Amino acid sequence: MSSDTLRDGLLAEIQSIPLIDPHTHIDPHRPAARSLDDILGYHYYTELAHSAGMTRAPLAADVPPRERAKALMAHLDRIDNTAQYSWLVEIARTFLGYRGDRLGARDADWLFDQAERLMSQPDWEEQVLRKSNIEQVFLTNDFDDPLTGFDTNRYVPCLRTDDLVFKLDQPAVHQRLAKATGVEVGDAMSLRRAMTALFEHFTRKGAKACAISLPPSFSPGRVSVDEMNRALRPGGDATMRARGVFWDLAEHCRQFRLPFDLMVGVNRQVYPGGVYQGQDLYDGRMSLIQYAELFNSFAEVPFCVSVLSSGLNQELVSYSWIFPNVITSGHWWYSNIPAYIEADLKARLQAVPKTKQIGYYSDMYKLEFGLPKFNMYRRLLAKVLADDFVRTGAINEAGAVALARQVLRTNVERIFFAAA
Amino acid sequence: MSSDTLRDGLLAEIQSIPLIDPHTHIDPHRPAARSLDDILGYHYYTELAHSAGMTRAPLAADVPPRERAKALMAHLDRIDNTAQYSWLVEIARTFLGYRGDRLGARDADWLFDQAERLMSQPDWEEQVLRKSNIEQVFLTNDFDDPLTGFDTNRYVPCLRTDDLVFKLDQPAVHQRLAKATGVEVGDAMSLRRAMTALFEHFTRKGAKACAISLPPSFSPGRVSVDEMNRALRPGGDATMRARGVFWDLAEHCRQFRLPFDLMVGVNRQVYPGGVYQGQDLYDGRMSLIQYAELFNSFAEVPFCVSVLSSGLNQELVSYSWIFPNVITSGHWWYSNIPAYIEADLKARLQAVPKTKQIGYYSDMYKLEFGLPKFNMYRRLLAKVLADDFVRTGAINEAGAVALARQVLRTNVERIFFAAA
Amino acid sequence: MSSDTLRDGLLAEIQSIPLIDPHTHIDPHRPAARSLDDILGYHYYTELAHSAGMTRAPLAADVPPRERAKALMAHLDRIDNTAQYSWLVEIARTFLGYRGDRLGARDADWLFDQAERLMSQPDWEEQVLRKSNIEQVFLTNDFDDPLTGFDTNRYVPCLRTDDLVFKLDQPAVHQRLAKATGVEVGDAMSLRRAMTALFEHFTRKGAKACAISLPPSFSPGRVSVDEMNRALRPGGDATMRARGVFWDLAEHCRQFRLPFDLMVGVNRQVYPGGVYQGQDLYDGRMSLIQYAELFNSFAEVPFCVSVLSSGLNQELVSYSWIFPNVITSGHWWYSNIPAYIEADLKARLQAVPKTKQIGYYSDMYKLEFGLPKFNMYRRLLAKVLADDFVRTGAINEAGAVALARQVLRTNVERIFFAAA
Repeated sequence: MSSDTLRDGLLAEIQSIPLIDPHTHIDPHRPAARSLDDILGYHYYTELAHSAGMTRAPLAADVPPRERAKALMAHLDRIDNTAQYSWLVEIARTFLGYRGDRLGARDADWLFDQAERLMSQPDWEEQVLRKSNIEQVFLTNDFDDPLTGFDTNRYVPCLRTDDLVFKLDQPAVHQRLAKATGVEVGDAMSLRRAMTALFEHFTRKGAKACAISLPPSFSPGRVSVDEMNRALRPGGDATMRARGVFWDLAEHCRQFRLPFDLMVGVNRQVYPGGVYQGQDLYDGRMSLIQYAELFNSFAEVPFCVSVLSSGLNQELVSYSWIFPNVITSGHWWYSNIPAYIEADLKARLQAVPKTKQIGYYSDMYKLEFGLPKFNMYRRLLAKVLADDFVRTGAINEAGAVALARQVLRTNVERIFFAAA
Repeated sequence: MSSDTLRDGLLAEIQSIPLIDPHTHIDPHRPAARSLDDILGYHYYTELAHSAGMTRAPLAADVPPRERAKALMAHLDRIDNTAQYSWLVEIARTFLGYRGDRLGARDADWLFDQAERLMSQPDWEEQVLRKSNIEQVFLTNDFDDPLTGFDTNRYVPCLRTDDLVFKLDQPAVHQRLAKATGVEVGDAMSLRRAMTALFEHFTRKGAKACAISLPPSFSPGRVSVDEMNRALRPGGDATMRARGVFWDLAEHCRQFRLPFDLMVGVNRQVYPGGVYQGQDLYDGRMSLIQYAELFNSFAEVPFCVSVLSSGLNQELVSYSWIFPNVITSGHWWYSNIPAYIEADLKARLQAVPKTKQIGYYSDMYKLEFGLPKFNMYRRLLAKVLADDFVRTGAINEAGAVALARQVLRTNVERIFFAAA
Repeated sequence: MSSDTLRDGLLAEIQSIPLIDPHTHIDPHRPAARSLDDILGYHYYTELAHSAGMTRAPLAADVPPRERAKALMAHLDRIDNTAQYSWLVEIARTFLGYRGDRLGARDADWLFDQAERLMSQPDWEEQVLRKSNIEQVFLTNDFDDPLTGFDTNRYVPCLRTDDLVFKLDQPAVHQRLAKATGVEVGDAMSLRRAMTALFEHFTRKGAKACAISLPPSFSPGRVSVDEMNRALRPGGDATMRARGVFWDLAEHCRQFRLPFDLMVGVNRQVYPGGVYQGQDLYDGRMSLIQYAELFNSFAEVPFCVSVLSSGLNQELVSYSWIFPNVITSGHWWYSNIPAYIEADLKARLQAVPKTKQIGYYSDMYKLEFGLPKFNMYRRLLAKVLADDFVRTGAINEAGAVALARQVLRTNVERIFFAAA
């Protein structure tokens, strides 16, 4: 283990900063896991186990949870080198009383029982949040989510818009939109009315961001009303429709003063034979210059940009250093492993105004993952601050802690809570 | 020198792992060098010396080997910063009794004589393999190689297929294929018969892989029989023909249970004025998504993928983490220097199932290069394991050594020898 | 601070190497700053402050310099994490008697006064150069610069050619060219005559390089006389014209034996709302293969290539390792931060002949920036040499210092001063 007192000291200070997690997929009606199956069902485990040879059979809905967990854990010895595996060990040790360090097949039953016992405690959710030092958690809500039945102060709504932009021609999406807004969308004007209704609903319920994930080929641009009317007809041009809906979203973000989270570069269903949520990949051949018109057109909208590769991160660093409304946001998905986080983080800390960096979000589906994922980031942040800031004389220890607080907490508050 | 006992301890353990070198260009009839000229004739030296100002004149066939070696060594002081130069020093010290550390022009005669004397020993090949701790060596065989006259257990045949895919329209290639298989290829069916004959020949002789290098523009895809018939006619479409032959190869890999080594991204003859084998470069603008249809269509074929840049390595890490049949393979050519190996290796070890990584291959033309190239990798592997795995607490020392063994030895055995 | 004696020792030796700065934007008639406003007016500060929320209002011409400096310094606390901020602190400490380490709004008046007092000393320019250990400074001269009234031995002229290649159709540029050369350019032949006149003028005045910055889409190629005649007519094809002028420049570089500095990959005015010189960005989707025809056609011309991303740096390393006339040059603009310098530098030092690397240039507009920018590079060079060369046993300390001298001084002399 590390015996670097500077790093360790910084890490301790960083761990004491209470967090707001600005992007997750938490279900506020079921935020914490209720079983080991909920933990191991995270796509990071199912996809890695599948990649390492596990069939999809144990993942079928009719397989008993304990059997599914055992099947998954029987493949851990093929992926126990990965960062993802280390999150699991940290969850087991921190939350489930595990004392070993090589979690494997033989631990499955015991761990399943432990999880069942501990997670059924009435205050489990509170325990997890407290141990993780997380105070607020952003959600990812479908546009027709009623946003009722949960504490929207703790679980902050966020309007996810992929379906609107890319699937509005599907009858089901069309109908969901009509039901949610009372507007039958048939042309540019009705689309705008529907969207305004959504934004009114979401902001009334305390939503603090609009979010979307975008394929590498996507290039936002202004679409005329005529073009949009044509694109919204049956058989209309899908690219034009996507661009038009997207542009409308940006206009609503401006009007309703919501930051827009752009998660750029993902190709969906590249591996259709993969497990649920384990089918997407990316294509390095894209550039943020595709977003230049957008950034120029909406100076008032903070765009919190997440990317999937270090190549694109270097562009993001440069774009964020130049455009006032471009903000670096977290370490997303395939970039969310220590080797890439460390390199990407170092460049951001050295070249982007410190007020324009959202350090990290967990992207979690269950609260238990906040702790190991943020800890991975916290350790790398402590390392980079120690080695590249304090030890080079650029900053002292107090300054390093203040910088950490800025990217982990202060910016999240200012960008999301001051804007709306 | 390093005084890091953890790294040193790991390195000693790693060096004791007997290797199978899964990709080389060894001539099994002349596997070891017979002179210093054989060593310095490696394109890494001729191209660097040429890049640094040496004309191609000393490389002409009629120049006496000693003079060629002297000309080359007279340019070493321009390239003695490079990783490639350090391989040469390690060869001179380990195999040729050199005691200095700055090999240069003044050492040429002495080293030439030493090499001549030592390399003529009857057991030279054995000595080299033993000192390198290499047990088996994969070859790169032309499709019409008779594969006779050598020990195919030590020198494992591998079917190289670049000529078939990209040069089948050349009369010489056509004739070599006819001679090797007895089949005159004129359409899709005869092509398939010829290919089956090749795979039967190769697998009978113990071949363990099919291999090819591919330009950045190549994008595999299924080709219909009609399209292929047209493409095989004189003047037929070259792209279609290449795709069709390639797809057929993948089908034969499936049928004959051979892994398919894909070395993606090389542009041939970018610098036609360069030395032999020193004319090729690459173009960063490609994506593994070009291979998605292939990976999806041949779930049973292990694809061992080598790439030329860290940008593409990040894609490879992600594709290998998702696709069960995509395996990371070695550190190829322009990526085979410490700075890129270390970064690429770190990401693979943190995110790809450990069972799906082929750590390294030497790509050597003469056995003497196995030792310094593998040692370069071994040292970086020890460093990454020490700093990013043991010191972070992710793994203990025994686990680190086991992980090294997995990527250096176990996976090579399982992927190539279990499959066929 | 670092307590690494090896690094510190190397750094001290490196700092004693007298420098030639091979690329700057110095005005030889006003080389040093005359006020704090000259320092803070550097686009690195105005663009970062603007990106962090400062409007462009304080940058207007009619704002008093002290007020502008105060406005800028009032935003430093938003960018005090950046490498650029650390240059400012180093300037304040080395040149302006500042004793603190967190320069901010409260220091504005004092620092402004200090600067005014110190910079008015008659030998200020000499002091700055001496403290920076810089002996000669390359300029970036417009093609119609008379190159008179300054010491061309200290301030070495360099012909900048962006306007010729990309704006020759603009009447103002056409007229400036006519005035400078006495040639009305209307076709390929007159263009060549005009260009010859420029090169004669520049080389007579001691110019040592031709330089240009190029957008990612640019792809040099030979243009026929007919095509060029058409392209030079009103309404002619802009791409063809740019390629033709560029090719002519390369031919003149050959004829006049001038190295050609290629700064590749910049997109101009991506953010038109930005501050002066803070509007440009880049697009990672380009490849040096676009330059293969150029490199092949002009074997006698040294091309000193600068790139904007680590992805393209990896290509540059490979192209420079293969092409004798491709030279790696500095760490440009968005790549000029420690995280990217260190990674890019490491790869160059490990794989490119040491005679073909131009370590660094300052790109400065005022002499005061030479010191902190070169120091940033010197520290990283000392670090990489210590950790990746001396400590790995590849080289001893004296060899490391010699390698530093080679890339910082010897190569600049040989490439620019021996060639012309």
